[in-house]
Amino acid sequence: MDRPRHQGMAKNTNMRWRLPLVCLLWEVAMIVLFGVFVRFGAEADAHWEEEKREMNLTSDIENDFYFRYPSFQDVHVMIFVGFGFLMTFLKRYGFGAVGFNFLLAAFGIQWALLMQGWFHSFKDGKILIGVENLINADFCVGSVCIAFGAILGKTSPIQLLVMTLFQVTLFSVNEYILLNLLHVKDAGGSMTIHTFGAYFGLTVTRILYRPNLEQSKDKQGSVYHSDLFAMIGTLYLWMYWPSFNSAISDHGDAQHRSAINTYCSLAACVLTTMAFSSMLQKKGKLDMVHIQNATLAGGVAVGTSAEMMLTPYGSLIVGSISGIVSTVGYVYFTPFLESRLHIQDTCGIHNLHAMPGLIGGIVGAVTAAAATEDVYGKEGFIKAFDFTGVYQTRTPSIQGGFQAAGIVVSLLMAFAGGAIVGGILKLPIWGDAAAENCFEDDIYWEVPEDEESDVYHMHNPDKPASP
Amino acid sequence: MDRPRHQGMAKNTNMRWRLPLVCLLWEVAMIVLFGVFVRFGAEADAHWEEEKREMNLTSDIENDFYFRYPSFQDVHVMIFVGFGFLMTFLKRYGFGAVGFNFLLAAFGIQWALLMQGWFHSFKDGKILIGVENLINADFCVGSVCIAFGAILGKTSPIQLLVMTLFQVTLFSVNEYILLNLLHVKDAGGSMTIHTFGAYFGLTVTRILYRPNLEQSKDKQGSVYHSDLFAMIGTLYLWMYWPSFNSAISDHGDAQHRSAINTYCSLAACVLTTMAFSSMLQKKGKLDMVHIQNATLAGGVAVGTSAEMMLTPYGSLIVGSISGIVSTVGYVYFTPFLESRLHIQDTCGIHNLHAMPGLIGGIVGAVTAAAATEDVYGKEGFIKAFDFTGVYQTRTPSIQGGFQAAGIVVSLLMAFAGGAIVGGILKLPIWGDAAAENCFEDDIYWEVPEDEESDVYHMHNPDKPASP
Amino acid sequence: MDRPRHQGMAKNTNMRWRLPLVCLLWEVAMIVLFGVFVRFGAEADAHWEEEKREMNLTSDIENDFYFRYPSFQDVHVMIFVGFGFLMTFLKRYGFGAVGFNFLLAAFGIQWALLMQGWFHSFKDGKILIGVENLINADFCVGSVCIAFGAILGKTSPIQLLVMTLFQVTLFSVNEYILLNLLHVKDAGGSMTIHTFGAYFGLTVTRILYRPNLEQSKDKQGSVYHSDLFAMIGTLYLWMYWPSFNSAISDHGDAQHRSAINTYCSLAACVLTTMAFSSMLQKKGKLDMVHIQNATLAGGVAVGTSAEMMLTPYGSLIVGSISGIVSTVGYVYFTPFLESRLHIQDTCGIHNLHAMPGLIGGIVGAVTAAAATEDVYGKEGFIKAFDFTGVYQTRTPSIQGGFQAAGIVVSLLMAFAGGAIVGGILKLPIWGDAAAENCFEDDIYWEVPEDEESDVYHMHNPDKPASP
Repeated sequence: MDRPRHQGMAKNTNMRWRLPLVCLLWEVAMIVLFGVFVRFGAEADAHWEEEKREMNLTSDIENDFYFRYPSFQDVHVMIFVGFGFLMTFLKRYGFGAVGFNFLLAAFGIQWALLMQGWFHSFKDGKILIGVENLINADFCVGSVCIAFGAILGKTSPIQLLVMTLFQVTLFSVNEYILLNLLHVKDAGGSMTIHTFGAYFGLTVTRILYRPNLEQSKDKQGSVYHSDLFAMIGTLYLWMYWPSFNSAISDHGDAQHRSAINTYCSLAACVLTTMAFSSMLQKKGKLDMVHIQNATLAGGVAVGTSAEMMLTPYGSLIVGSISGIVSTVGYVYFTPFLESRLHIQDTCGIHNLHAMPGLIGGIVGAVTAAAATEDVYGKEGFIKAFDFTGVYQTRTPSIQGGFQAAGIVVSLLMAFAGGAIVGGILKLPIWGDAAAENCFEDDIYWEVPEDEESDVYHMHNPDKPASP
Repeated sequence: MDRPRHQGMAKNTNMRWRLPLVCLLWEVAMIVLFGVFVRFGAEADAHWEEEKREMNLTSDIENDFYFRYPSFQDVHVMIFVGFGFLMTFLKRYGFGAVGFNFLLAAFGIQWALLMQGWFHSFKDGKILIGVENLINADFCVGSVCIAFGAILGKTSPIQLLVMTLFQVTLFSVNEYILLNLLHVKDAGGSMTIHTFGAYFGLTVTRILYRPNLEQSKDKQGSVYHSDLFAMIGTLYLWMYWPSFNSAISDHGDAQHRSAINTYCSLAACVLTTMAFSSMLQKKGKLDMVHIQNATLAGGVAVGTSAEMMLTPYGSLIVGSISGIVSTVGYVYFTPFLESRLHIQDTCGIHNLHAMPGLIGGIVGAVTAAAATEDVYGKEGFIKAFDFTGVYQTRTPSIQGGFQAAGIVVSLLMAFAGGAIVGGILKLPIWGDAAAENCFEDDIYWEVPEDEESDVYHMHNPDKPASP
Repeated sequence: MDRPRHQGMAKNTNMRWRLPLVCLLWEVAMIVLFGVFVRFGAEADAHWEEEKREMNLTSDIENDFYFRYPSFQDVHVMIFVGFGFLMTFLKRYGFGAVGFNFLLAAFGIQWALLMQGWFHSFKDGKILIGVENLINADFCVGSVCIAFGAILGKTSPIQLLVMTLFQVTLFSVNEYILLNLLHVKDAGGSMTIHTFGAYFGLTVTRILYRPNLEQSKDKQGSVYHSDLFAMIGTLYLWMYWPSFNSAISDHGDAQHRSAINTYCSLAACVLTTMAFSSMLQKKGKLDMVHIQNATLAGGVAVGTSAEMMLTPYGSLIVGSISGIVSTVGYVYFTPFLESRLHIQDTCGIHNLHAMPGLIGGIVGAVTAAAATEDVYGKEGFIKAFDFTGVYQTRTPSIQGGFQAAGIVVSLLMAFAGGAIVGGILKLPIWGDAAAENCFEDDIYWEVPEDEESDVYHMHNPDKPASP
């Protein structure tokens, strides 16, 4: 048996009763709150036939379901398979990566339906939900999956649930400030999802700094097949990102344009990532860490601007730059953050989400500020930025300013929220593992015997496995 | 070489000639029957332009293809990747899991297109098919994949093909009785797919009881990476289940509503599964068997009611309960079924499909019985339950009674059919493996040398690989 | 450490500077060319509201995005996950398979958007792109992924990029000749993608013949889990092939019909593949190589005819035959090609793409030649073959002749192009590996220590691994 032993100051990581209690109580709370508040929106309600007449729709195909459901499913895959498998790269934390991601996301989407519902879909005392709410709930949880990447392998499932509860709440507040108060555009979430999620997670992991983490250094690497599992996550994120950035854009050209811009940005990002991955290694070999992560930066970096008239070549430029920044980040910034700032960032979310998220916010602000009626058309200009009602006098440059303000607000919310939540998670009651047991599934999971051990036991009852 | 040897009463598991003969003859039969019977439906036929005028459709987007194709593809993934990879958890049966599932499903969908076509799409001597038929064929085969879970690792590919032939036939009869004679609603198949498929499979495995199965006990477990492969199956089933339950619902609100209810039920199910998985273990560790399977029970349990006005909180309740029932089943019922009732259920389909399927049938009956014109709207009420023609006088409570009758019919068909088919599969002509060779790919597959063996050979050049 | 050593005439495989230079320069070229040429098409442009009025469209759902985006995403998955993972079957080349496929496809789609754009979407000096262009770019790159299969494991990433540059160019020329000059139908690309791509790749690998390749024979096989990774690729290709063949067909019945024909063909193909895989082995065991590849031949073989009135039983026949041809090819032709013709075809693309592609071209020609107004309807006939304008006098038999000519042109382009490109790739400047280092990730990738080695190093400095 080569399982880690709890040595020294053994911590109590037994989840029995604690984890079940949290899960069951919170699920009961969800049921009660859903019972009080959540109902079907008009397009999912059996009264739809009457609604259709009122809205003057001639066909069922006009139901929002058909505009957004395919994108929803792609986003759903990104959250559960994309993020889940991306984090399976660690040799002995695959169960935790995919399993805890599953747990926190399943809870998070319920709580997000409520939180976002109160802010955005509340009518006559009820939250009315449809497919767009499901997408937004997945988006919200995406920011938690991002933060999870920073603390991967170092936290108990209860800590993750507690973080999810708070982060979803803060996400919804931040989103409300940006979208409703500042009237900012951010369909793909460069600011609300990536910048907020990443800096939140980085702040949390800073607060939870573990000085003795090198005790589990042997488990912080990958093995050959764990790197291939991670590539499943990478590719699904990469392929479906056009759906992510277009999922909640306006019907028609905006969805269409978002998908094209994202497709272009991601393609360019792969080339610059490969270039810098090879360039920054003495022997010119490619590093799977970069390929798994930095290739995705292009999707993050057009999150705000994809639905705008960024243009395909603009997208190539943004994607190219973000691939470079992200790869350079893995090589130089991550070690610096850890050694100097005590930020232990397991998956390198600073490179994949934080910096590209900032780029995305800035690109969005610039693209908005540069918008003209000539480029968008008179109607398209108003529709793209929703310059109606109280906002009908907004100019592009003012919009650009508000977009920039959105970045700042997201950062402040992330730092403040992360500090508070990090403090809560530091309480010694949540059952996190000792430093030498980090990155090890055996602490929270029933782990099967290894194949190697099997072979060993079968063939070498009293001989060494190798000479 | 650490391959199992045929010892004792060695069975003839050589598939040469037998398997090719069955595959080729049956495929020829399919070609002949398709040639006689199967043609394109109006929406897939080149006469569509004329049809469109007759149906007064103004746009190609009204073609049923655009309402259902994305859901079809999701269902297709569930059948082939979902079920296939879910069953790869066994350490040495991954090829059989994914490969035999591929084989039986590929045959099954052809036979299902015919069987279901004769019952539901027969017009002027021809079966007219479209995307809805493809979905239904996949659904039908889903029930065979479920039954496969009970006998996984213990049967030859020919047995699986024989079972598929009979099960698809019986499924279609049962479905016809339920949907057409009893006028029962079951869009997600809690009764027709899950209850029928699971009890059919459990009856078959009971008939095929192997008293000496503990001889292959060492291969009944998983290894670390086989558990991760299985999670691919789990997550694709989980993520796409909203598509499964909504795929053949009425256009518009019904599809929309089905997806939302299923999304909610599945989210809740994850939390209660995690809670009970931890609670029922002394050390509070999570068990991958539960996470891989019981998290899906929520999708099964709203299969009948998802398109009804179950409401999101109703879905949370159903999902929560089914997660608990399923997890408890794995811990307590499965061992009981094996030791007392001699039901050897490799994947635990009793917990994932049988019990949740019954719950689904009951929830459907209750939800139907509780329907009111107030909740559904006058038109929505009639449309949701198709209370037209000879059924226009049906009341909700009568509908509830018929729904309940559908459960009973499905159970009876499953037990009777499973007993007959189990008897046929017991004939000693199908080439199944001896007990000590169960759960072992090497019997029916060319298996590459293990990586471990490689290492061994490399490091031990002058010693035998095995004692 | 069991890593290969550079022995004998060690080659310089260091990619530093060379790979980065190519990636960065080419990406800059893409940015410049996109900047000069590429703009949003009308349906993705912010002027869409005005366009909609001009086109007399009443709803956003009429935007081509909603007709094609779900199929686009499926095709996207096939290119990146399908082809990428299909090639991970080699025990030590998983990073190269999935990573280099990622690299070449990401570059290829950019270049294809330009090349195909100049030929097909050029208007007033600009290439106007929409979702159909994205699909076509993916299609074009699909032919490169096919060719990659022949040279897998034997080429440097720079060689792959160079090949992609030329192959995309030649693909676009060939496609233009077929679709525009010959007015040939080939929606699923039996000729343009599969026949061209495969014979191009086979010619390249012939030119790059390595006489000493048996030096890396120990790495040409699979291990248990690498075969399961490859099945991920297989299944995604198989499941989404109906989307592939229907993605760019006409709206309405043509897309619908293509999906049905492909579904049927693929189902039949699985049965005949399994039959012959078992039949051609002495012990009747199934071979994963066949299951991973030959099961897909049915999709290739209806690539041209799927959108025609091939009929479901016609599809079953084509699928059945192509499964047989492909499996027989793996058993008999591949060894023959290698030993006699010096064509080293790593993935057996001759069996999966070349022969089935030819079948597909022929079936398409015959199906076109056999078309009648009776079967298609007067309008349907004209629409299906686009017999309008200068082509309004074409008869089915003439169309059949042109289809046949399309096969010949594709073959000639493939042989000539492959020979030239093969010659270029033979130059000793691209950093390909020595024969004994083929099929080995360690040459171009940072490869983590093996789990086995870990166990060994950690636990067995001079002691048994377990007490």
